[in-house]
Amino acid sequence: MEIYTGQRPSVFKLFGKFMRKGLYRILTQGPIPTHLAFILDGNRRFAKKHKMNEAEGYKAGYLALLKTLTYCYELGVRYVTIYAFSIDNFRRQPQEVQCVMNLMMEKIEEIIVEESIMNAYDVGVRIVGNLKLLDEPIRIAAEKIMRATANNSRFVLLIAIAYSSTDEIVHAVEESSKDKLNSNEVCNNGIEAEQEFKEANGTGNSVIPVQKTESYSGINLVDLEKNTYVNPYPDVLIRTSGLSRLSNYLLWQTSNCILYSPFALWPEIGLGHLVWTVMDFQRHHSYLKKHKEYLK
Amino acid sequence: MEIYTGQRPSVFKLFGKFMRKGLYRILTQGPIPTHLAFILDGNRRFAKKHKMNEAEGYKAGYLALLKTLTYCYELGVRYVTIYAFSIDNFRRQPQEVQCVMNLMMEKIEEIIVEESIMNAYDVGVRIVGNLKLLDEPIRIAAEKIMRATANNSRFVLLIAIAYSSTDEIVHAVEESSKDKLNSNEVCNNGIEAEQEFKEANGTGNSVIPVQKTESYSGINLVDLEKNTYVNPYPDVLIRTSGLSRLSNYLLWQTSNCILYSPFALWPEIGLGHLVWTVMDFQRHHSYLKKHKEYLK
Repeated sequence: MEIYTGQRPSVFKLFGKFMRKGLYRILTQGPIPTHLAFILDGNRRFAKKHKMNEAEGYKAGYLALLKTLTYCYELGVRYVTIYAFSIDNFRRQPQEVQCVMNLMMEKIEEIIVEESIMNAYDVGVRIVGNLKLLDEPIRIAAEKIMRATANNSRFVLLIAIAYSSTDEIVHAVEESSKDKLNSNEVCNNGIEAEQEFKEANGTGNSVIPVQKTESYSGINLVDLEKNTYVNPYPDVLIRTSGLSRLSNYLLWQTSNCILYSPFALWPEIGLGHLVWTVMDFQRHHSYLKKHKEYLK
Repeated sequence: MEIYTGQRPSVFKLFGKFMRKGLYRILTQGPIPTHLAFILDGNRRFAKKHKMNEAEGYKAGYLALLKTLTYCYELGVRYVTIYAFSIDNFRRQPQEVQCVMNLMMEKIEEIIVEESIMNAYDVGVRIVGNLKLLDEPIRIAAEKIMRATANNSRFVLLIAIAYSSTDEIVHAVEESSKDKLNSNEVCNNGIEAEQEFKEANGTGNSVIPVQKTESYSGINLVDLEKNTYVNPYPDVLIRTSGLSRLSNYLLWQTSNCILYSPFALWPEIGLGHLVWTVMDFQRHHSYLKKHKEYLK
């Protein structure tokens, strides 16, 4: 399989693919991340730098995304999550919001086509976020692509649209509340007596002091975790254009995730960045594995 | 004022202080962060590197903390938050947990003494976290130091003990639930009808689509924000020893915070790192300020 461009492969492309295969053979001697998350930052700056209009910048970003996804799937990264459009992005100029929405609609339609990268690599797409905030056509398209790729199971692509982490946590509180109300656990008098902290922490580890407490909400850590949009948690979060801020993205999920901020703008991201990401993951892997077991 | 060591100042120290003053005069030409947060990582590795026992590593870490706090106060950083002991740290060897607790007790007692750095710089101390998880003596000491420094108002030192960010969010849900129950807003039938998203988002910005929805919990973003332990949000989070993970620290608060991971172990942190932090903050300041206004 090759990078999806809609064209026949040239000799250069075949040579590139051959070289990549050799590189992957070396990299896969070590562990490969299960889940990579991306903040696609720098499309507008790229457009400005190359004297393009914003729409062209976003299109360059889309091509970079296809390329990056191809590399991830060739390497065997099972989950990829991308931050396509945040709730705060709705505050941008209306014509820019419309431009991004149109591009998303166009690309979603493209992805649904049989020969797309999603079917070529057997990728199931999940659109996550506060989808109620989207216009109806884009929401319908989002549901359509999820249905169209529902039988693809080798890889999972999570696309965060109308997403923000704090909104995700409020949503998790809401869903947990609904679960509790449905199971009649709360709202007798709003108090669950003698709940133990170790239970709330979902660990059962006896080293952590037991906290005898009353609970008004009946909601614990496990409930919230269960109701977040993005699961499993990413191993590495990559934010392009050199900014080391999370911008309200996957805050809950990145507590033990490696953060990597290359200086390249998103459309400039290349195989080198992915190789660096995997090598850095491998360098920290034994520590992170031990740490995960320690937290169990 | 000078770095608090309990000894009289030498000529070298006075010279050092004079040099620092010159440096501060240059730095304060630009904006100074209001709030710096630190993850004091690398005390045990420092001990290992220098063939000390762990207790000596932590003591070196404590001296580095005093030094760093002094620099922050000299520079005029109003809020400093430090991650002293996480909930997960309770899983460490019992003798190590005891050693850290003893050191904390000892230092808290020291801080309460009149001539301490806290009174010298007029610093109010707030211990934040799930204090119910602490043994009684340390909890009493924590309450004592908060009372002892309650009238100090120029600077605020937040010390996170028995803290984890996910636990903080569960706590915020719990407190918000309690507020709602007390104000009889929920638990009639658990549903608040027609709540608007822009209201939940606390912004009132009309650009964000309005979401007409029912609420089971009655808890929104503003409620959760109000009930977090750490406020205001930090401008820069510094994690020493080269690790760029948040380790379940201030996840909610760092969505638009600069993350900085110098390679130095915590006891090796110096004025240079703080100067770099302030310069990096100044470099991003105009963008961050604009971004904050944009989010309002």
